[in-house]
Amino acid sequence: MAPRTPHPAPVAPSAPSIGVDIGGSKVLAVLLNADGSIEATARVATPVDGDAQDVVEAVLAVGARVAGTTDAPSLPLGVGVPGMIDRGGVAHFCPHLHSVDGVDLHHELAVRRDPGATTVVINDATAACWAEHRAGAGRGFDDLLMVTLGTGIGGGAILGGRLVEGANGFFGEIGHMVVDPHGPPCPCGKRGCWERFASGGGLGRLAMEAAQAGRLAGVVALSGGNPEAVRGEHVTAAAVRGDPGALEVMNEFAWWLALGLANLANALDPSAIVLGGGLIEVGEVMMGPVRRAFAELAEASEARRVSVLPAQLGERAGAVGAALVAAERAAG
Amino acid sequence: MAPRTPHPAPVAPSAPSIGVDIGGSKVLAVLLNADGSIEATARVATPVDGDAQDVVEAVLAVGARVAGTTDAPSLPLGVGVPGMIDRGGVAHFCPHLHSVDGVDLHHELAVRRDPGATTVVINDATAACWAEHRAGAGRGFDDLLMVTLGTGIGGGAILGGRLVEGANGFFGEIGHMVVDPHGPPCPCGKRGCWERFASGGGLGRLAMEAAQAGRLAGVVALSGGNPEAVRGEHVTAAAVRGDPGALEVMNEFAWWLALGLANLANALDPSAIVLGGGLIEVGEVMMGPVRRAFAELAEASEARRVSVLPAQLGERAGAVGAALVAAERAAG
Repeated sequence: MAPRTPHPAPVAPSAPSIGVDIGGSKVLAVLLNADGSIEATARVATPVDGDAQDVVEAVLAVGARVAGTTDAPSLPLGVGVPGMIDRGGVAHFCPHLHSVDGVDLHHELAVRRDPGATTVVINDATAACWAEHRAGAGRGFDDLLMVTLGTGIGGGAILGGRLVEGANGFFGEIGHMVVDPHGPPCPCGKRGCWERFASGGGLGRLAMEAAQAGRLAGVVALSGGNPEAVRGEHVTAAAVRGDPGALEVMNEFAWWLALGLANLANALDPSAIVLGGGLIEVGEVMMGPVRRAFAELAEASEARRVSVLPAQLGERAGAVGAALVAAERAAG
Repeated sequence: MAPRTPHPAPVAPSAPSIGVDIGGSKVLAVLLNADGSIEATARVATPVDGDAQDVVEAVLAVGARVAGTTDAPSLPLGVGVPGMIDRGGVAHFCPHLHSVDGVDLHHELAVRRDPGATTVVINDATAACWAEHRAGAGRGFDDLLMVTLGTGIGGGAILGGRLVEGANGFFGEIGHMVVDPHGPPCPCGKRGCWERFASGGGLGRLAMEAAQAGRLAGVVALSGGNPEAVRGEHVTAAAVRGDPGALEVMNEFAWWLALGLANLANALDPSAIVLGGGLIEVGEVMMGPVRRAFAELAEASEARRVSVLPAQLGERAGAVGAALVAAERAAG
């Protein structure tokens, strides 16, 4: 077995840096001190109906706000974006932020900042993975898979102690792994993509199907009596209370989540998988069934001994990771 | 886009080395010269009905034969094994060679060799991946996925120019990626594993199903009139001749193969995928449909521009790669 030595270096960027995470509803920024601690946090609404320039303005504005009296345009800036971002910082395919598709975000940001200031634009889950590895649940694991469960599913990995980016910077587009070609259609054009089952959106779909099939009577009653109105958060809340129908849906969800995790663990051989996203905050009612299903589904799981862990940095992970990457690049 | 620069270093181990690949039917050895050229090749039958010690004896015997007058026990020896081999050279799960499960193959071999001689035991597809990267179709690609199609499916990868082994040495167990939970049962206990569809064995299953359904009349006639007797090689031969039913089965096979390749490309973001195994020798009748289906199934494939290539080293890839890894480790 591979040793699981603690990471030798504490989180220590050499200078303050700004990290910004562009989410589906909010743009969140942190100012990271040189010792890795969070000095300040700020947020603005994501300009979902605006154009790419509005997104750039939002990033710069929230960055300036979090920097306070510090000169924001001179500090290292890292930005996490939900989509396929190439190594040059160009957005290629951002299903939840189409306004930036094809835009050279690195250029658009850099021209508004000090000449020579470090500006880094990367995938949001890649950023979150680095943050959890350096300062969260993934500390000490040099072979780490991070899976973020939101509207869709994002991914990032550390292999051999290094953040993996891939040939183009697109490493970790795991949500559209097809796990059931006869499954529900996906906006991407395929059927049965993993995120149709195992994301926050996937839980909502499983919940509504269960409600319509009459398997969630208690939950339906509490959510106003209309099966169509049942959402994922109703199910997680009811599962925490012990509602049998809700627990059944959580088990179904956990099985699909574990199926994809097992597929990825077979391929990547991580020593730990960190699960992020708001969904994991329900705790053991989700993590327990996921761990049990994973142990059944991963090949020779007793030989692998993969730790399946909840993320520790919460909604700030993407911004913290982007700030860390920018600070490290600035330090050379 | 990532540049695809040719690999700067030619294949040049510092001394001769022996590589051995343990296959389902034969144990194949090469003696690799210091310049990377193959000096000699030898093979013996795999002791499929024997115990682990018989396997060790076969490896040592074929290694000695290929070394000729050179002192085999002193040369670097690399061995590729079909299964999950940990970083210490212990076999954990070898579905096609169960006799070695749980055996410390590195120890069993090393005690029979010169003290201080380098002995390396690794997964066979990992070895083949390194060979194709250094001396075959994968030259110049620093982010490379190798997929070997045999009875099952094996995998290996180069990421950022480095051979990836994973936390335990188990990187690349991609054959048991579930792609259809309602699919045919797999000996591993799950349903719809990728290798049920996309390996040599998978092609045989698709062919027999098509024959039984009456979709392969021409092929059935040529294989003796019994649909149960139709095998994958009958279909590939008929497809090369242009038999419409056989071409249809090849397209079906190519779709399943491309589905898994797309899942893996989305996750790993390689710039090239090299396909190995005897099956690829049919050429464009398989590679063409695979490339077309892959372009449809991979996320934003126009932005990725992944080259899907046939392997170049044939059946020697595993042995050559094992020899290269051993020579490089011996050189420090």
